[in-house]
Amino acid sequence: MSNLQKEDFSAWYIQTIKQADLMDYSPVRGCMIFKPDGYEIWEHIQEEFNARFKEEGIRNAYFPMLIPESFFTKEKDHIEGFSPELPWVTEAAGEKLEERLALRPTSETMIGTAFSDWINSYRDLPYEINQWANVFRWEKKTLPFLRTSEFLWQEGHTAHENEESARERTMKMLAVYKDVIESVLAVPVYEGQKTPSERFAGAVDTYSVEAMMKDGKAVQAGTSHYMGTKFAEAFDIKYLNRDNEHVYAHTTSWGVSTRLIGATIMTHGDEQGLILPPKVAAKQVVLVPVGPWKKKPEIVERLDVLLADLKAKGIRALIDDSDNSPGFKFNEWELRGVPMRIEFGPRDMENNQVMVKMRDLDGKEAISLDGIVDYVVEALDSMQVRLLETARQNRQQHEYTHIDTLDELKAHIEEKKATGELPGFVLAGWDGELETEARIKEETGFTTRNMPFAPPVEKQTCIVSGKPAKHTVWLARAY
Amino acid sequence: MSNLQKEDFSAWYIQTIKQADLMDYSPVRGCMIFKPDGYEIWEHIQEEFNARFKEEGIRNAYFPMLIPESFFTKEKDHIEGFSPELPWVTEAAGEKLEERLALRPTSETMIGTAFSDWINSYRDLPYEINQWANVFRWEKKTLPFLRTSEFLWQEGHTAHENEESARERTMKMLAVYKDVIESVLAVPVYEGQKTPSERFAGAVDTYSVEAMMKDGKAVQAGTSHYMGTKFAEAFDIKYLNRDNEHVYAHTTSWGVSTRLIGATIMTHGDEQGLILPPKVAAKQVVLVPVGPWKKKPEIVERLDVLLADLKAKGIRALIDDSDNSPGFKFNEWELRGVPMRIEFGPRDMENNQVMVKMRDLDGKEAISLDGIVDYVVEALDSMQVRLLETARQNRQQHEYTHIDTLDELKAHIEEKKATGELPGFVLAGWDGELETEARIKEETGFTTRNMPFAPPVEKQTCIVSGKPAKHTVWLARAY
Repeated sequence: MSNLQKEDFSAWYIQTIKQADLMDYSPVRGCMIFKPDGYEIWEHIQEEFNARFKEEGIRNAYFPMLIPESFFTKEKDHIEGFSPELPWVTEAAGEKLEERLALRPTSETMIGTAFSDWINSYRDLPYEINQWANVFRWEKKTLPFLRTSEFLWQEGHTAHENEESARERTMKMLAVYKDVIESVLAVPVYEGQKTPSERFAGAVDTYSVEAMMKDGKAVQAGTSHYMGTKFAEAFDIKYLNRDNEHVYAHTTSWGVSTRLIGATIMTHGDEQGLILPPKVAAKQVVLVPVGPWKKKPEIVERLDVLLADLKAKGIRALIDDSDNSPGFKFNEWELRGVPMRIEFGPRDMENNQVMVKMRDLDGKEAISLDGIVDYVVEALDSMQVRLLETARQNRQQHEYTHIDTLDELKAHIEEKKATGELPGFVLAGWDGELETEARIKEETGFTTRNMPFAPPVEKQTCIVSGKPAKHTVWLARAY
Repeated sequence: MSNLQKEDFSAWYIQTIKQADLMDYSPVRGCMIFKPDGYEIWEHIQEEFNARFKEEGIRNAYFPMLIPESFFTKEKDHIEGFSPELPWVTEAAGEKLEERLALRPTSETMIGTAFSDWINSYRDLPYEINQWANVFRWEKKTLPFLRTSEFLWQEGHTAHENEESARERTMKMLAVYKDVIESVLAVPVYEGQKTPSERFAGAVDTYSVEAMMKDGKAVQAGTSHYMGTKFAEAFDIKYLNRDNEHVYAHTTSWGVSTRLIGATIMTHGDEQGLILPPKVAAKQVVLVPVGPWKKKPEIVERLDVLLADLKAKGIRALIDDSDNSPGFKFNEWELRGVPMRIEFGPRDMENNQVMVKMRDLDGKEAISLDGIVDYVVEALDSMQVRLLETARQNRQQHEYTHIDTLDELKAHIEEKKATGELPGFVLAGWDGELETEARIKEETGFTTRNMPFAPPVEKQTCIVSGKPAKHTVWLARAY
C-alpha cells in the first residue's frame, strides 16, 4: 500500500474527494459542483447550526445577492479589502447598467442598509439575523471546498445597544462555532483573536477558530467580528436610546462556510480515503451480505429487518446487495468514508451475530444480533468522540512551543523537511508590530493564525525582534 | 371597516405583506428582502418538499451559479427563451472576462453538462437530483414574491433510459407539487398541460399546477417538464443501453419557487390582513394575557406552563406580555396571520378555561384548560383543512364553464367589471392553433393557463374559430 497521504497530501486530498464522489469540477473558473454526498455533509452542518441559532433567538432571512457599487464605497476599509476579488454584473436584459452590481462577497453593506431602515429604538435591539447564501470571491488559486470562487456559507449580522452586548454576541458565536466544529465535525480548534493585519475588512476586532490539518497546515474554520460603530456610521444605523438620544448601534458579523467540509476531510481521512464523522455522514452504516448469501434468501431478509430497525432509530443505513464481490464493496464504502460496516453471511446467521468493522479502527468484531440496534447507536456515538480525541492527539504531536527566534523557526522548518515530518503549529511571542509579523511571513511562509485565548505557554519575547512579547500567537502555513 | 381587498387588491396585497413584516424592498431593481417571518414560510415549504424528495429517492446537490454564454447557445429554444432576461458578469477581479457569464435563470445547461460526464451506462439511470438555489430573471414589472429579478426556488433534474420512465417522473413531480400546495399551503390547484406557446424554453411538454387568487387572477404555482432527448442531444448525455448501444437519455426538470408564498397570501388573506395556514406559519399560536393580569402574576405563570406544554408538542407558540393593550395585540397578531389566539385573564383562571379565537373564524370560544393541548393540535389541523375547503369554495364561485364564443367572453368580462365581480377562470374549447390562442390574449387579456387533466366540462368547439375543439383550456388573467 502506497502512502500517498504522507507523500503528497494535496494529491491524496483530490483523489479522496473524487473517489468518495463528493464533488466535481465545473467549467467555470474556480467554481465547483457539490455532488449529493458532499452536499449532504453541508445539510447536516446547516441543521446543527440552525438548531443552535434558534436557541440563541437568531432567525434566518434572505437578502439580494447583487450589491450596488456605491454601497461598497461607504466603508473605506471594506471596499479596499474586497474589491480585488469582486465579479461584477455590468449588463442585464440586453442593456448596460447605470451602476455596476457586485456579486456579494459578504452582505454587511446590504444588511447595514436594511438595518438603517429597520432599527429605530432601543426596543428594536438587539436585532439578530442569519443568512444562508452563496457568495463570491474571485480567487486566483482554488482548491475544492477550501477556496472556491463561489462558495456557500452562513453569515450572521446583529446590531446592539452598546459595545458590551455586541462583544458578548461576537464571543458567543465563536463559542457556538467551536462547539459545532468539535462536537459535530470532530475537528479540534483553537479559539483566539486575529492580528490587526488579518482582520475582516472593516472590523474593529476579528476572532477565529483555527484547525490543524493532517499535513500540519492550518484552516481558518470560522470567524466572528466586532465592528464597533464603523458600519453603523457608514450606513447610518442610528437608534433612539434609553436617554432619548440618537446614537449609533454596535454591530457584529460571523460566518462559517463550506470550507468546513474540506477541513473535516483533511482532519480525519487516511490512506484508504475518506473518514466521515457519523453526525455528518450521508450514510452511517452499510450492510453487506457475505459468503454464499445469494443461495440463502433469508440472509437478505434478515438484513432488511435490521435495516428497517436501524432506520426506525434514525440511523442513515443502506444494504449493498449489488453483484460486486464483498472485497470490492468493502473497499468502495471505505473510500466513501462510511463510519460503520456490518457484514452478515450464513455462518453469522447460525451464530446469531454480525461482523462489525468501524471505519477508523483496525479489525472486525463479532456482535450478537440481540440488541444490535443499541450497539450500533453506541458504536457511532463512540466513534464520534474517538475521532475528535484522535484528531486532538494528532494535533498535539505537531504543536511546537519551544521556539524563541526566527532562526530557530527556520531551523525547525528545515529539520522537519529533512525528516519528512510536519512543521505544524508553532507558538511564538510577538511584539505587536506589523513589520515583525510581515518578516515572519516573508522569511518562513508561516503566518499568524490567531492569538489564542488559552495558549499552552505564555511567550515572553518577540520571535523576530527579541523585544518583550505583547502577544502569544500561533504561527503556521495555512490554506 | 374599508374593504381594500375588494377595492384595490394590489394595494391590499402590498399593505398586507408589509404590515405582516414578511418582506422589504431593496435598492436593487426588482430584488426583495425576505424578512424572517417571510423566509420562515419558505423554510417550512422546503422541509415539506425535502421529505417528499427523499421518499422519491431524489437527492440535493449544488451547481455553480455562473453559466458561460457558450452553454446557452447549445440549445436554441432555451437561449431564445431566456436571453432577454439574463444579467451578465463581464468583469471580475479587475479584469474583463474572455466569455460573459450569465447569472443562472435555471440550470439545465450547467447540469446537462455535468450529466454528460456522470452518466455512462443504463446502470447509472435514472439519475435524479434537486437543487435549492437563487435564480435570476431580469423582469420589467415586478411584484414581491410573485415576480422578482432574483428569487429562490428548487429545480429538479433527472435523466432516464426511456420516454416512459421520464414521463412518469414528470407526472409524479406534478402530483407532488399538487399534494404540497394543497395539503401544506391550502391552495387548490388545477393540474394540466401547458399549450405549446407557454412551454418551458426547450421542453417537449410542460405541465403546470395553476391556482386562482382571491382577485380571480391565476398564479402558475409549479411546472414540470418532459424534455425528450432535446437537452441530451444538445449536451451529449449519452449512455450505453441494455443492448450495448450508445443512445441519448430522456431528461426532465421541474420547479417551484418563492412565488408560492405570494400565492398563499393572495389565496387566504382577508380585510384584516394575512391568514397563514398552520403548517407554514412562523407562529401558530399567540397567548395573550387579558383583564387586570399585571396584578396577578399567576396569569402569566399559567401561560408559561401552557406555552411549555404547546412547545413540547412541537407547536410554534409565543406569549405577548408586552405593555400594549389587548386590543392592540389582537390586531397586531391578526395582521401577521397567526392562526390561533388564546386569551387568558383572571376570570378565565377562575373558570379553568381560555378564550380561543381562530384567525379564519368569527367569534371566540371558551375552552377548558383540561386537555387544552390536544384541543390546540386538533384546532390547527381543522383550520388547515378548512382553509383549503374555503379556498375551493371561493374558486368554484369564479369558474365559468358556459362561455362558447369570444363575444360571450368579452361580454362576461364587461358584465363582471360592471357588477364589481371577478371574471375568474373561464373554461374554453380551443382548436389548437397558435393564432386563435393569440387572439384570445389580444382581445381579452386572458391567457391560456393549462389544459386541465380533468376539466369540469369537455368543450366541443373552439371559442375563437368555432371549429371542433382539440383541447379544453382554462383561460384567465395571470400574475
